[in-house]
Amino acid sequence: MNPFLSTSKRSTGEEGQYSTDELRLANRNSGLLLELLDSDITPIGAHYLLNHFDVPLLDSSAHQLRFKGAFKNPHTIGMQEIQSLPSKTMPVTLECAGNGRSGVSPRSQSMPWMYEAVGTSEWTGTPLLPLIEKAEPTADVIELAFIGADRGFDNGIDHHFGRSLTLQQINELDVLLAYGMNGQPLLPQHGSPLRIIVPGWYGMASVKWLSSISALTTAFDGHQQIGTYHLKQSESDSGVPIQDMRVKSLIKPPGVPDWSSRKRCVSAGSVVLSGRAWSGNGRQIVRVEVGIEDSWYEAELSPPIGQYGWSTWTYSWDAQPGEHSICCRATDNEDNQQPLDAPWDIAGFANNAVHRVDVFVPNN
Amino acid sequence: MNPFLSTSKRSTGEEGQYSTDELRLANRNSGLLLELLDSDITPIGAHYLLNHFDVPLLDSSAHQLRFKGAFKNPHTIGMQEIQSLPSKTMPVTLECAGNGRSGVSPRSQSMPWMYEAVGTSEWTGTPLLPLIEKAEPTADVIELAFIGADRGFDNGIDHHFGRSLTLQQINELDVLLAYGMNGQPLLPQHGSPLRIIVPGWYGMASVKWLSSISALTTAFDGHQQIGTYHLKQSESDSGVPIQDMRVKSLIKPPGVPDWSSRKRCVSAGSVVLSGRAWSGNGRQIVRVEVGIEDSWYEAELSPPIGQYGWSTWTYSWDAQPGEHSICCRATDNEDNQQPLDAPWDIAGFANNAVHRVDVFVPNN
Repeated sequence: MNPFLSTSKRSTGEEGQYSTDELRLANRNSGLLLELLDSDITPIGAHYLLNHFDVPLLDSSAHQLRFKGAFKNPHTIGMQEIQSLPSKTMPVTLECAGNGRSGVSPRSQSMPWMYEAVGTSEWTGTPLLPLIEKAEPTADVIELAFIGADRGFDNGIDHHFGRSLTLQQINELDVLLAYGMNGQPLLPQHGSPLRIIVPGWYGMASVKWLSSISALTTAFDGHQQIGTYHLKQSESDSGVPIQDMRVKSLIKPPGVPDWSSRKRCVSAGSVVLSGRAWSGNGRQIVRVEVGIEDSWYEAELSPPIGQYGWSTWTYSWDAQPGEHSICCRATDNEDNQQPLDAPWDIAGFANNAVHRVDVFVPNN
Repeated sequence: MNPFLSTSKRSTGEEGQYSTDELRLANRNSGLLLELLDSDITPIGAHYLLNHFDVPLLDSSAHQLRFKGAFKNPHTIGMQEIQSLPSKTMPVTLECAGNGRSGVSPRSQSMPWMYEAVGTSEWTGTPLLPLIEKAEPTADVIELAFIGADRGFDNGIDHHFGRSLTLQQINELDVLLAYGMNGQPLLPQHGSPLRIIVPGWYGMASVKWLSSISALTTAFDGHQQIGTYHLKQSESDSGVPIQDMRVKSLIKPPGVPDWSSRKRCVSAGSVVLSGRAWSGNGRQIVRVEVGIEDSWYEAELSPPIGQYGWSTWTYSWDAQPGEHSICCRATDNEDNQQPLDAPWDIAGFANNAVHRVDVFVPNN
C-alpha cells in the first residue's frame, strides 16, 4: 500500500509536548527573530518562511509564466518581458495563516508556530491586473488559479501548490506579480524567480514559484484551496475560507533573554516597549494597548509602513522590580480587537490572541 | 529570587516528545532546507542560524573592533579600515556543534536539531593573523578571546557571547575577520558588521558581532568556553573541548515529500542520489558510501568546494517499488568514518551518525 495516499486525519497534540513530525516542520520552516521587529523592513533572510514542499531551484532566464484555460488570449511570458513592464515596489506585511497554532488548545499537529510567522518586505514586481486583462478571460470565467512549481503530497493528494482568487478579488486586491524582495531578486526559498503577493491576506494566497495562471469557469478544486485553509469547528463543518489577516500585534521582547527559556531580564527604570501591529484587507490600526498586570495602557502609534505594512507602537514603561507579564492588544478601524485567548478551530489557523512576554526586573 | 541566576541542570527529553522550550528554540533558530544541498553555495538566507541571544542591530559605519588586554599595541579599528585591508573570499562549510541533537538518546534539552544545522557560504574578509601580529601580544599571552555584542543569560550566567583560541590555533587555522557573505555585507542575523570565521571548526568558534579581541595571559573563563561546548559523559566529567567538525555527510532527499511527515515518494527507475560530505580541520573526504537496505555502494566523489567547503557525492540508484531506507556514510583521509548510531554525551553535541531518509517507490 502506498503510504502517501493515506488520508488520515491529523492527530491532536498535548499541551507542552510536541511530536517528531511537528519538530521536523519547526526545524524546516523559519520565523522572524522577534528582536528584528525593530526593523521597519525585515532583513533579507529573516522573513518567515513556510514551504509546503521542497524549494524548486528554477532557472530564472528560462522561466515562463503560462496564461492558460479560458482566456481569449492564452500565452506564455518570460521573465525578461515581465521585468520590462511597469514596476512597482511596496512594503507588505505577510503572516502565515498557521501563526500561533501552538497556542491553540487542543492543537492540530501541523507547523507549530508560536508568534514568529510574520515579516514585512519590500516587494518589487508588476501589477497583475493588466496582464490578466491582456489575456482576456472569457465571459464565463469566475476564478483564476495560480499554480506553483512546488509539488508534493498532503493528506494523500499529490499536487502542485495552488490557490485561486475570484475575478472580483483580483479587481479589488492590489496583487503584485513579484520578482524582487528588499531590492534583490527573489531568493530561491521565497519563490524565485516569480510569485504573487496578495496584500492583506494570509501568506498562503501569495503563491511562490508561479508557473501558470489558469482561467476557470468553475470553482478551483485544488487541495490547498478546498482541502485546507478553512476555519472549521469539526471535520464535517464546511468551514469558512481563510482570506484576510485578523488584527494582530507583537512586542519586541525587551531586555535580554535567557538562552533556553527565552524569558526576559529587564533593568529597573524607564523602558521603551515597542512593537508592530497590522490588520488585513486594507484595514488600519487605530489603537494598541499595552497590558501590564491587570491594567491596559494606550501606546503611541506611528503611521503604517506604506499601505500594506505594519504600524509601529511604543510605550514608555517604568519597570519596577519583580516578575511581570506584558502583552499588547491592537484594534483596527473596523473595531476588530485581538482576543485575550486563542480562538479555536480544528486546524489551529489565524490565532490572533494577544502576544504575552514574561519579564523579570531584578532589584538593582 | 532572580530566576535568571538559577543554574539548574537541563532536563532530559523523551524520545519523540519535545518540550515547549525546545520548540521555542526550534522556531527561533533555522536550518538548511535539505533540498538546497543541490547548491554548491547555500543561498543567502538559507544558511543555518543558531543565535544564543538576541541579534544586536549594530551600526556598521560606527562599529569598532577593540584589541585590548595584553597587547603591546592595543588599539581600535573601524570597519572602513578593516575593509581597506587585503581581502580574501573563501567558501567554508560551517556546522552547528548541536547538529543532530534530537537523534541522541537520552537527549539533552537544548536546540533539537535533526540534520539541518549546516551551510556553505562564501565569506569575504581579511585574514586575522596579520592584525594580531600588528597588535603584538606580549610574551606571556596564551590565548585570545573573541567577544561579541550579543548578551544574555545561560545557566544563570550573564555574559556576552565569547570564545577563545590559543595563539597556536590562530597560527594554524586560517581565521578570517569577515564582513561579507555570498558577495553581500553580512546580514544582521549572521553577525553584521563583523565576525570571525574559523574554518574546519564547529560554528560556535566563529563569533558574530565581534566587538573586541582580548589578549589573555591565563585561560579564558567565559561561559561559552568552559561552561558548555565540551563532550562529557557525566556532569562531573571535565570533558573534551569541542573544536573541529567530525566527518559527516547528508543526502539531498530524493523525489517529492509528504507535507507533514516529510517522507519521500520516488518514481521507480534510475534515480541520481546526491549529497554533500565534509570533515573538520582541513581533512578531506576520501569516500562516501550509500547504504540501501543491507548493502553499501560506493558513491562518486567530486573535489571539495575550495579548501574548507564540502565535497559532492552522487550515486545512480535503480529504484525498485517498495519502501526503502537510504543512508550515506563518509570517510575522511585520516580514516575517520561516520558511525551508524549516534555517539552520546550529556549535551548532545557533535552527532555525526549517518543521515537516513525513508523513501517509498510506488508500483507504476
